[in-house]
Amino acid sequence: MNFSSKILEDAVNEMSQLPGVGKRTALRFVLHLMRQPEQQTDQLSTALTRMRHDLKFCKKCHNVSDGDLCEICSSPKRDETIVCVVEDIRDVMAIENTSQYRGLYHVLGGKISPMDGIGPQDLKVRSLVERIKKDGVQEIIFALSPTIEGDTTNFYIFKQLEGIDIRTSTIARGIAVGDELEFADEVTLGRSIAQRVPYESSIKN
Amino acid sequence: MNFSSKILEDAVNEMSQLPGVGKRTALRFVLHLMRQPEQQTDQLSTALTRMRHDLKFCKKCHNVSDGDLCEICSSPKRDETIVCVVEDIRDVMAIENTSQYRGLYHVLGGKISPMDGIGPQDLKVRSLVERIKKDGVQEIIFALSPTIEGDTTNFYIFKQLEGIDIRTSTIARGIAVGDELEFADEVTLGRSIAQRVPYESSIKN
Repeated sequence: MNFSSKILEDAVNEMSQLPGVGKRTALRFVLHLMRQPEQQTDQLSTALTRMRHDLKFCKKCHNVSDGDLCEICSSPKRDETIVCVVEDIRDVMAIENTSQYRGLYHVLGGKISPMDGIGPQDLKVRSLVERIKKDGVQEIIFALSPTIEGDTTNFYIFKQLEGIDIRTSTIARGIAVGDELEFADEVTLGRSIAQRVPYESSIKN
Repeated sequence: MNFSSKILEDAVNEMSQLPGVGKRTALRFVLHLMRQPEQQTDQLSTALTRMRHDLKFCKKCHNVSDGDLCEICSSPKRDETIVCVVEDIRDVMAIENTSQYRGLYHVLGGKISPMDGIGPQDLKVRSLVERIKKDGVQEIIFALSPTIEGDTTNFYIFKQLEGIDIRTSTIARGIAVGDELEFADEVTLGRSIAQRVPYESSIKN
């Protein structure tokens, strides 16, 4: 692209480093900011810089946090005996949005994926095992994506927990609410039949 | 969305002010930046702040510029007798990318659009007329989008130029290169027949 300004070009180039943002979209963002009050760009810059330098990760669950412990880990209202294992902090947000879970979390930071060069040592597995031993956790819930990598990670952690007296569960796989049965894949439909639940419990939520 | 960090929430909120960026996309951007070196976020913030405070508009053509005059207006290689009237600085970039035009530009900053409350006084029309009178411009090319607003703006400027000895032209409307004839709309196809060009001149480019 042919910019008539080096300053504009720099801003567009930096913006286009964001995932899924090409030069055209970056230019659209930048021109939008030019039309807004200067204050908006200043606030954006400050928020980003502050986020990158001041945002911490919770020492217990590795979720994002403003302090040493995140709001969830430091809340007295949460059930400390249950830990839900997730891949990413986005998964924490997704589960929190359901308002169905009152336990704690453990953010692994990824899934075991040899194709991408990610092994167990790259994930927060050891700190999970230590935490379970130390904090008297009674149940862990695996809430990873139902992919080969997710299942592998679940199994790896399950093996690490051998000899520890703890209940393990995994979130239910089945037909998503609102989906048509005929379009469901065989594996999902098969599991949803094998792991059927009593009708009385299904109408509670 | 349920953020466990105020700092993260601020960054996502600011990012989601960008056009077409919702909370989820903003979160994706922000988490991407968290995984990159701190330097990248710093460069982005600096480039944006610098752009918003230091970027100027060319005093002659209203294109973006690092100085008082933009690179195009200050280049001795450009033909100063032709001015191409465009809506937006993106249009300048688009035309520059074709390498087909060696004249100057005039960026109106929009189109006359009563629906959006944009009248001629909101556009750089007066400075265009003054410039034509002063700088000895011999031809102006209307290169606005072929919409009702674009045509209205063209006509308004055309009327303002009454009594001034100047050639006016408009960019050709027709079937886009690579388009199928059968899918072209009637107006475009009609114009492309009415404004047909000698075959010899069509094979030059």
